[in-house]
Amino acid sequence: MKYLNLLLLLIPAVIVMEFTHANEAYIFAASLLSIVPLAAIIGKATEELSIHTGPRIGGLLNATLGNAAELIITIFALKAGLISIVKASIAGSILGNILLVLGLSAFIGGLKYERLQFNCYVSNLNTSLLLMIIISLSVPAIFSISGHIEPDRLQTLSLWTAVGLLLIYVASMLFSFKTHKHLFHVEHEGQNFEWGLKKSVTVLFFSVAAVVVMSEILVETIEPATKALGLSELFVGLILIPIVGNAAEHSAAIIMALKNKMNIALEIAVGSSVQIALFVAPVLVFLGYAFGHPMNLLFNPLEIACIILAIVVVNNIVRDSETDYLEGLILFVTYILISIGFFLI
Amino acid sequence: MKYLNLLLLLIPAVIVMEFTHANEAYIFAASLLSIVPLAAIIGKATEELSIHTGPRIGGLLNATLGNAAELIITIFALKAGLISIVKASIAGSILGNILLVLGLSAFIGGLKYERLQFNCYVSNLNTSLLLMIIISLSVPAIFSISGHIEPDRLQTLSLWTAVGLLLIYVASMLFSFKTHKHLFHVEHEGQNFEWGLKKSVTVLFFSVAAVVVMSEILVETIEPATKALGLSELFVGLILIPIVGNAAEHSAAIIMALKNKMNIALEIAVGSSVQIALFVAPVLVFLGYAFGHPMNLLFNPLEIACIILAIVVVNNIVRDSETDYLEGLILFVTYILISIGFFLI
Amino acid sequence: MKYLNLLLLLIPAVIVMEFTHANEAYIFAASLLSIVPLAAIIGKATEELSIHTGPRIGGLLNATLGNAAELIITIFALKAGLISIVKASIAGSILGNILLVLGLSAFIGGLKYERLQFNCYVSNLNTSLLLMIIISLSVPAIFSISGHIEPDRLQTLSLWTAVGLLLIYVASMLFSFKTHKHLFHVEHEGQNFEWGLKKSVTVLFFSVAAVVVMSEILVETIEPATKALGLSELFVGLILIPIVGNAAEHSAAIIMALKNKMNIALEIAVGSSVQIALFVAPVLVFLGYAFGHPMNLLFNPLEIACIILAIVVVNNIVRDSETDYLEGLILFVTYILISIGFFLI
Repeated sequence: MKYLNLLLLLIPAVIVMEFTHANEAYIFAASLLSIVPLAAIIGKATEELSIHTGPRIGGLLNATLGNAAELIITIFALKAGLISIVKASIAGSILGNILLVLGLSAFIGGLKYERLQFNCYVSNLNTSLLLMIIISLSVPAIFSISGHIEPDRLQTLSLWTAVGLLLIYVASMLFSFKTHKHLFHVEHEGQNFEWGLKKSVTVLFFSVAAVVVMSEILVETIEPATKALGLSELFVGLILIPIVGNAAEHSAAIIMALKNKMNIALEIAVGSSVQIALFVAPVLVFLGYAFGHPMNLLFNPLEIACIILAIVVVNNIVRDSETDYLEGLILFVTYILISIGFFLI
Repeated sequence: MKYLNLLLLLIPAVIVMEFTHANEAYIFAASLLSIVPLAAIIGKATEELSIHTGPRIGGLLNATLGNAAELIITIFALKAGLISIVKASIAGSILGNILLVLGLSAFIGGLKYERLQFNCYVSNLNTSLLLMIIISLSVPAIFSISGHIEPDRLQTLSLWTAVGLLLIYVASMLFSFKTHKHLFHVEHEGQNFEWGLKKSVTVLFFSVAAVVVMSEILVETIEPATKALGLSELFVGLILIPIVGNAAEHSAAIIMALKNKMNIALEIAVGSSVQIALFVAPVLVFLGYAFGHPMNLLFNPLEIACIILAIVVVNNIVRDSETDYLEGLILFVTYILISIGFFLI
Repeated sequence: MKYLNLLLLLIPAVIVMEFTHANEAYIFAASLLSIVPLAAIIGKATEELSIHTGPRIGGLLNATLGNAAELIITIFALKAGLISIVKASIAGSILGNILLVLGLSAFIGGLKYERLQFNCYVSNLNTSLLLMIIISLSVPAIFSISGHIEPDRLQTLSLWTAVGLLLIYVASMLFSFKTHKHLFHVEHEGQNFEWGLKKSVTVLFFSVAAVVVMSEILVETIEPATKALGLSELFVGLILIPIVGNAAEHSAAIIMALKNKMNIALEIAVGSSVQIALFVAPVLVFLGYAFGHPMNLLFNPLEIACIILAIVVVNNIVRDSETDYLEGLILFVTYILISIGFFLI
């Protein structure tokens, strides 16, 4: 993790390149990589802060800041009107988290332990919330494709879908942090803080600020850079940005799996997907109005089909509250095949 | 429930309006509402009668008369050649029962009890029968859409599908009332009858007769009324008729959920859907020939997609033999989003 | 089983008819029927041989020779460039095994025993591998239909999908025969050999040789025979060939179900499907290059829809590690309806 922080040196480099109008492909790559350590630092600072605030507000903090980097990147993309990139990176985050992160965790953890077990309430809650993702993707698509709904009415349907998603998100927070919290004995790491309150807040502030600057530059260079690199926008949005944006989470989940703490790995992987779909996506729909770039929730059929396939596979695998290397490998292979598909189109 | 019977006053009103050729939108609304208490009375009379006849014939009576109102309405619609209304109200009954009735029951019951449990045999039987609904919807659709089957052959396929549905329905009755009945310890309400045999039969006879008259008038006014009210036929058939037609069942299921008798709530909600798909639908296919309006089982893609989505969600939620308010809310939100979709197209 | 061997007399008859240029419909029927006892003999010889070689190599032998007849038929069809017949018979084998064989086993076994139970690890492994079939069918179809992928890139995607399938196949063999083998206490029949090593090898050699000859003749006559009989190629490939080719397995699975040895019945039915999809299909993709008839893994939408429907139904039914006659009947009815559909198009 220490070496990761070397990537922070890219921040001044990006700024210099930006002012000297360097090659946009380099700026794109450098700003994307610089977000890797920043996301990790935001995660660490949030965790430290949450120890100071107590578990309830801490849970809330973790839940809302957990995908801060993605939220900020997508907000800038939305502001720039790059709606297909916004949707692709939402879709890609979901796919990456539930197939790649969970798959690698189960595969690597499963090579060490014969069976990896989940708390059945954790797996049950997560599979229910993944269902909500299928619902929110399907309803606009069903009415758009089979119902020939008009564009402005599709916008209305998307708005209501966003309200439904937020409602379920809030209810799920109440469920897991208040009414049913005793069911979720997630074994947490030692809760002694290393940083003081002031340091936590300061670090959080500056790292979020740095992500804001890097994201703005990243988004500006997406279009020219993808052209220069000969990649499709869909591949960049769906595969590249989410892998880099979630790198810190990926390693955290695998480390947890190696300690046979699969509940935490599941929380990181599936919890992240759920948060992006149930919190980030509706927030972006609302912000779309503010930015004058209204965004509906009609994803392209390719994204919808891949996400539904991924969720069906993950739900079948997670449901019995245990997993092993073979199931992990199935998830991982699914991710690789989907990535190859997006690379080839 | 007492106040509900005030709606019975609408019966003479409907007849007067019918003879005076009043505005069809009023006749439509009044006849629709008058069916609410009638359906409740048929339910009560069937229950009383079944105590007199013993559990086996009683189970059969409940199973066949449980959806008497819907059966009668759809028979009149079929006779009038309104095949798309027939299909829409079959589809709507399934959606309304498994999403709205079960969702509200689980949500409201779940606010009172931390966990609502099902008998695993009850949930297992019901999820298997819901699968049969997916099969019966999918097979004609798959061959029609991907196989370019000719219309008269689609009719043949629908006939065989109807035979298959009835066969599974009969087998499921044998399963739950005969060969495996000891597995289903559904805690029934006190089984002391309030009504004599004669009263039960008389009430049943007159309430069914009243539903017959009201349904005939309702069906006559559907087309002009939907036009006058500016609603799509699909919205009326899929959302409005099933909600009103099942109002009595809705309240019964919620009352059971509030007593933590989720097996009965599940029986009412899912059992109703199953009965409509596995008994009412094939009977209508056979009657279609008698009426000279042959009906196939090819539903429109919108209906198929919504029902498959609903069943996938319900099966995932019911399968683990317990539920809670969050899962109930997910079902309810799904219903609302689908209803908004049908309202907007 | 003794009487079955009478069908071996068809082998010389086929050869005589072939040389005398008899009616191709007769040759087709006779060669198809002659494969029934040959497949049974290969099965018996493989089993005997595997006792001599010990369980590990024996498992491998069973796994690779278990579908020898189908593998040989499809290789000849591929060599002849009949790619749609190859795909149809892969699809048909999967459907026949998981719906017809498993359905009849559960139905007939369920009439005798109230509940038929599976080892939960056996059912869990099999449902995971069935998911892999859905993935391998869906990924090429999703990118072909929604992504408008170019034909040569679809070939690349198919090749990678084939690699993924083989990888999971090898991993599943390691899983069930090595790393996790203690979980699978499949109660095997008495393991005393009846045949010596030499007899086993000799019988295996000659029965495989006979299948090779019969398959070559069968494939030659498919096209003229289907025309003469007025059947669609899809019906022959999907329904007729798999039923006949799997007849021996069908009876074996039902015999096991009648002894309440459902784990073996499940292994035969689902295990066979998995082997065809995860081993035979990718091998055919690789062989396609050698034969100069490159085969992709894009099945037709009808086949994909039917297989996904079948797997969803089977997974829901098998998942709870027990079954009964009603669930068996649902699988059987599904198979019959799909067969009627293919007959009617």
